[in-house]
This record gives sequence, C-alpha cells and structure tokens, in this order.
Amino acid sequence: MLERLRRQDTRLDDYIDRYAARAHGMTASAIRALFAVANRPEVVSLAGGMPNITDLPLDVVGDALNDLVLHDGRRAMQYGSGQGEPAIREAICEVMRLEDISAHPDDVMVTVGSQQGLDLLTRIFCNPGDVVLCEAPSYVGALGVFRSYQCEVVHVAMDDQGLNPEALTEAIEALRAAGRTVKFFYTIPSYHNPAGVTQPLDRRIELLRIAEQADLLVVEDNPYGLLGFDGDPIPPLRSLNDDHVIYLGSFSKTFAPGFRVGWVLAPHAVREKLVLAQEAATLCPPVFSQYAVTAYLMNHDWRGQIKIFREMYRERRDAMMAGLTSHMPAGTSWTKPEGGFFVWLSLPPGIDSHAMLPRAVTARVAYVPGTAFYADGLGSRHMRLSYCFPTPERIIEGTRRLGEVLEYEARMLEIFGTAVEPESGRLALGPREAPGPDQT
Amino acid sequence: MLERLRRQDTRLDDYIDRYAARAHGMTASAIRALFAVANRPEVVSLAGGMPNITDLPLDVVGDALNDLVLHDGRRAMQYGSGQGEPAIREAICEVMRLEDISAHPDDVMVTVGSQQGLDLLTRIFCNPGDVVLCEAPSYVGALGVFRSYQCEVVHVAMDDQGLNPEALTEAIEALRAAGRTVKFFYTIPSYHNPAGVTQPLDRRIELLRIAEQADLLVVEDNPYGLLGFDGDPIPPLRSLNDDHVIYLGSFSKTFAPGFRVGWVLAPHAVREKLVLAQEAATLCPPVFSQYAVTAYLMNHDWRGQIKIFREMYRERRDAMMAGLTSHMPAGTSWTKPEGGFFVWLSLPPGIDSHAMLPRAVTARVAYVPGTAFYADGLGSRHMRLSYCFPTPERIIEGTRRLGEVLEYEARMLEIFGTAVEPESGRLALGPREAPGPDQT
Repeated sequence: MLERLRRQDTRLDDYIDRYAARAHGMTASAIRALFAVANRPEVVSLAGGMPNITDLPLDVVGDALNDLVLHDGRRAMQYGSGQGEPAIREAICEVMRLEDISAHPDDVMVTVGSQQGLDLLTRIFCNPGDVVLCEAPSYVGALGVFRSYQCEVVHVAMDDQGLNPEALTEAIEALRAAGRTVKFFYTIPSYHNPAGVTQPLDRRIELLRIAEQADLLVVEDNPYGLLGFDGDPIPPLRSLNDDHVIYLGSFSKTFAPGFRVGWVLAPHAVREKLVLAQEAATLCPPVFSQYAVTAYLMNHDWRGQIKIFREMYRERRDAMMAGLTSHMPAGTSWTKPEGGFFVWLSLPPGIDSHAMLPRAVTARVAYVPGTAFYADGLGSRHMRLSYCFPTPERIIEGTRRLGEVLEYEARMLEIFGTAVEPESGRLALGPREAPGPDQT
Repeated sequence: MLERLRRQDTRLDDYIDRYAARAHGMTASAIRALFAVANRPEVVSLAGGMPNITDLPLDVVGDALNDLVLHDGRRAMQYGSGQGEPAIREAICEVMRLEDISAHPDDVMVTVGSQQGLDLLTRIFCNPGDVVLCEAPSYVGALGVFRSYQCEVVHVAMDDQGLNPEALTEAIEALRAAGRTVKFFYTIPSYHNPAGVTQPLDRRIELLRIAEQADLLVVEDNPYGLLGFDGDPIPPLRSLNDDHVIYLGSFSKTFAPGFRVGWVLAPHAVREKLVLAQEAATLCPPVFSQYAVTAYLMNHDWRGQIKIFREMYRERRDAMMAGLTSHMPAGTSWTKPEGGFFVWLSLPPGIDSHAMLPRAVTARVAYVPGTAFYADGLGSRHMRLSYCFPTPERIIEGTRRLGEVLEYEARMLEIFGTAVEPESGRLALGPREAPGPDQT
C-alpha cells in the first residue's frame, strides 16, 4: 500500500530509461492544476492568450464551408502539398501586403499554426548546445521549442522600445568570444508577448543593422501585427530586409486559431529545407484548414473584421489600463500596449508572482507568473496580464481582485519580512512551469 | 552571367553553413520532377498512395460542417487541448473497438495525421545514432522521420507472413552484442505499405513474445486495418499486448486525409510525454479538424461507408491481380494483398526499377521504385504498385503498359547484358529519392 502510494506520488514512469536526451526537459507543469481551477467561471482569468472570436460571423463561415465541401470537397479533403496549397499561399502574400511585405507565394510555407513554424525552423537550424537569442522576457511557446531541441536560450534585455540594441551587440560579442554558435535571434517586434511593447521604426532599422553586421539570422514572430490600436502598423523587419529575416505569420489572431494555419516566409533555400522538414513531420499541413481559411478570406470582408477585432481589443486594453490605474498598489508599474493582447506588470520588491499565484487563484483572479517567460528562472517580480478574452467589466474586476492580493502580500512582507515562508509557498521555478496551450 | 548560371545550376544555398547536422540528410528528390509528370492525366499512376474518396457523401459532410459552425463554431475554431479534444478521443476508442482494442480516451493523443505520431514518438525516444528496426521494405514516410532524427534504420527481412521472427531475433541479438541501442521496432502488421502482406495471428503472437523477451517497444502502424477484403480483421498487436505496443491510427483512409487527424495510443507515461512534445510542436492539433471528424462520425453511417470503401478497393485489387497475371513477363512475381492499397512487385534479375522509371513514365505508366522503401540503397529489383486511386480499367491498362516496358527492358538486357548503361540511366539511389506526400 505504502509502495503503491509512493509510486503514485513520484509518478513513476516505467519508460523513463528509454527516452531520448531531449525528452528529459519535457516534464509536466506543477501549475497546470492551478490553471485548470483558473478556468472556472468564478475566476477572472487574465492568464489566457486565447483570442476573442465572439464577433466572427458564424453564418458566413458555415455557408462558406458548406459551399466548399459541395463544390471542392474532394480536393479539400485529400492529401495536399507539403508546402501548402497554392491558393492560400497567394492569399497569405495579400495579407502580408497590408504590412508592406512584398513576397512571392513560392517563398511561403504553410504551417500548423506559427508554433510549428518555430518548431521546424529550430529543427533545421539548431544542434544541441547552439545558442538562440531571445528577448527577456520571451514567448513561452518559443522557449518550449528551443528547450525541446536542447538549445541554450540567452535572454537579451528589453526596454520600452523592445529588444535593446546595445544588449544585443554585447551578447553576440560575448558569446562569439566564448566560442559559442549563435543560430539566430528570435523577436516579436510588435505588441510583444508577454512584454506588451513595440519596437519603433528606428529601433527596427538599428536591430537589422546589427544582424547584418554580425551576419545573424532574425526570426520575426508577428502574430499581432495587424492588431495595433492607433495608426498604421509599423513595417515588420521582413519588409525592411529579406535575406536575414525569416518571418512567421498566423491566422490565429486575425481569423481563428482552431484551423491551425500559420506560415513561414523564408529565403528560397531555407523554404526548401523547411518543406522537407514539414513532409517528415506531417506529410502536409491540414488541407481542409487551408481551403477553409481561403474560403473565409474570399467570402467575407476580412479586412473589416480585423478592424472590428482591433476596436474590441482596444476597448479591453483601455479597461485594463483603467483597472490597473485604480487598483494597483504603490511600487507597481506596467507597460502600455499599443496593440496585441498583453500587459507586463512589475511588482514591488519582495513580492514573488510565482509564489503568490495560488493565493491569487483563491481570490478568484489568475495571471501567468513572469518566470514562465524566462529560460533561466528569472521573472518572479513580474507577471503577464492578458486583456484579450474577458469583458471590460470582468477585466476591471480582475484588476481589483489582483490589487487586493498584492496589498495583502505587501502587508505580509511588512510584518514578516517575506510575503510567505519560501519553502512552503514557492513552487519550483523555471520554464518547466510553462502553462498549457490555452495560456500561451 | 556564367557565374549566375553556375549558381542556378548548383542551386547554391547561401544558408548551408547554418543548418543543424540533422538537416544535412534533408535534400530534395531527383525523382520529384518525374512524379510531377506522372500526375498528368495521360499517365496511369500506380505510384500514388492517395485514398479514393469519391464515394464520400459530400452533402452529408457539408451539412454537418455547417451545423457544426452554427452551433459550436466558437469552440471548434478556438485553441484546444494539446492532447486532443475529449469527444474525438472517445470516438477514436469506439473506432478501435472494431478491431478488438480496448483503450481509455485518456491514453489517446490526437496527431496531425499518423505521420506526426511517428515524428513525435521518434522525438521523445530517439537520440542520434539510436537504432530503429524496420521491415525490409518499410513505409517511406517512416524512413524520412527516422532519418530526420539521425536514427540508424536496420531493416529486418519479411516473408509472405510479414516481419520474419528469426530475422528479428538475430537483428536484436547482433545489435545488442555490438553495443547498439535499439529503441523500438516499427511494423505495419496489416496490409503492409509497400509489401502488401499481412501477419497472421500466430505470427503476431510470436513477434510480441520476442518484443517482451527483449523488452523492446513495438510501434504498430495500422492505417489500413479496417480495409481488409475478406472476413474479420486480424487482431492488431495492441489488442494482444498493451505495455510494449504503441499504436498509430488514422482517419486518412477510413474517412479522408485532408483533415489530418490521426492518433497515438500509448502507455500512460508515454502519452504524457507525447502531449508535451505535441505542445512544443503545434500547441494543439487542429481543433476544427477534430470537431469535423467527430461530426462526420455522428452524422453518417461511417461503418457502412468503410464497407463501401472496402468493396471499391477490393474491385481495384482484383483488377490489379488480373492485369498483372495477363501482362507481366516471365520472372516477375508479386504479393496478393488481402486489404490495403499496395502490391510489391519483384522483377527478373538485371532489371533496375529505379533506372527504368523515366522510360516507364515515357510509356505513360508510373510506380514507386523499391529503393524508396529502403534506408540502405537496396530495393532496385522491386517496385510498389498501388491500386487505390485509378479506376479498374485504368489499372489494367497501367499493367499492360508496364508489361511492355518490362519486355523492352528484358530485350535490352538480353542484347546488351544490361538494361541500360548504368552511369547515364541510373539516378542516385537511396532514401533521398523519396517521393512527395501524395506518393507515400
């Protein structure tokens, strides 16, 4: 009996000796259970990164798919090209033109969400031990990919204009002096996840200059580029440079994530390698999804729909800003996103966002601790708040609850010198604590 | 100008020095261009592995998807679980019950076609240099995956009852004596691709006994299991053993491949690792596809549909057998598949299926040379013929044309001692010559 309990307790894995070295970093997250609780309706979740697709015209989509099946079903339900179907690759080029990217459909490969683009790029470029430069903090899903290929992530400091050029230059020089192989730097220039900041044009030009000088590839991840709240989008890195930049795009935020259609735009030779990797990974990306997205683009005013999404997210961003201004205690600061889904909150010294999470969930508000966005265990003084999914009223209520939790933590800190007794309250830190797909 | 031509000619890749070691084996196939020609309507292609989905009721599917979008669109188009949606995992267990597999939905993970199941299994189990045992010949898409993870494939002989137990035992002993790490053996027990043979029950029991004794995992790939032409399906390996067998299933052949919905059924701990790998690879498999397949299963007599497919493929198998009997020259032999899509043809000594392919395509018939199904360059005396896609009349015409080409080759062989001057006529051999996704 005791033995059985111990087995359950240590979650003994009979297959543990058989796994590849790369699998040893893949362990289940201790905070998953907390997020399961956070999905209950009484909890305001400021943790999720799910787009709000309530405004999509279901009748239009339903009709378009019915038509698609009746008239083109036998092609849409068949195997297709490893690179992706020609029609959607043309449509993708049209979408990218909205951000001044000029590209040929032959240089586009369709992926199972842009997550798979990251996976396949890392697969073709990175040996174990190769260095990938990432922003500090960086997208949790990217860190998971880099870890799964046994890359070493080196974080580079950001400021309120995104990735810091001096820090980038220093990191490249230091790593090269140490004989390390740096494969690329990974960046989200617009409406950063999780930091909520955006690189202005002159910063982008400066970063590209550094990449060219160091002959370093840039992987530009741009899922939110069309979801800016004010004025025209800032030109993506790819629109300014086409031989050092590999661009990742996605329909997950401008249409819907459930089809899992993203893309990579890459220099021709790289695109060819990517297709061979895609064929090994899936034979071909989902053909029906590609036809469905193409049908949506052809049967709906998708540009108008993006404007509707933008206004909806802007209203939520405004609610988040108002809520934080009203309810955050002294010593707290946050970024002011001009687009996208996320705010990065910095806590007063001594408060640990990771240790605090169980108490926040008890107080019916959830967030993602900053530690999820670092490969090196840092980030505990920060958290990511998302405003993409809840209603404005719920967002404000969430910030109110969060404010109360923070006030309580601050009082505990004042009385006891620490917000909570470290051993008992703190969960293991580090990137293993990454949340599930609905939280990324 | 000359320099530019030379660049084009050698297809210079400016990024070649940046790729990972694993990417060096990923090179484009020289026979791709031939298969592009083979897809022209005047060519009878006995090369493709595409299912024939002409009989699917498009009106039923169209209605079901319209309903799905109208009533459940916001969930079907949203992010989902990395493991796959609960409803389809339950339906998958119901499908597997048709073959006597009893499984819990929690042990199932949904994949982007069963190809992705192979990819993720190899990812979690195989270090570079690890050995994977495969049948000789083996599925071309599996060989591509194993190569992309730098595994060493060791082929094990087959006979007319599939994988040969003595050869398997010998291979395991020899490899272990040599200090090699064997991670699993990969097998297609029913209606083998490309060999067209099926393991009878006693052979399955014998192979499982060997796996248990050697404490070796078995990866069972079963895309055609429900497409047997006579009598009840033979129980899959997984129905006879649940801790040494990892099972791969797919809706690509029983419904349609364009949704890219397959699955892995694995021991619990392995399934947990697979989900972490899936989240790194795609966040989650396509949610809409999963809802679509579930809607199809609920709104259509899918069991009856499988019977219709079975009859359709049986008629084509019969045409293939009749055509081969009428048109193959002396010295040729072939397998007699009891299900699935493929026949494995053995040629008279001296005739090279790989070298002969351009002449066959010129004679308006295409096949896949046997070399595609070996990791070690063997197979040139064999070819795979598929009967899944063309009409019975076209299949018979295809065998007639193939017979003429073989007669011609035999005459050349008689006159010149070789079917064609080796250097000029032979393309580079080996698995790099794998065909594209529509030929697998």
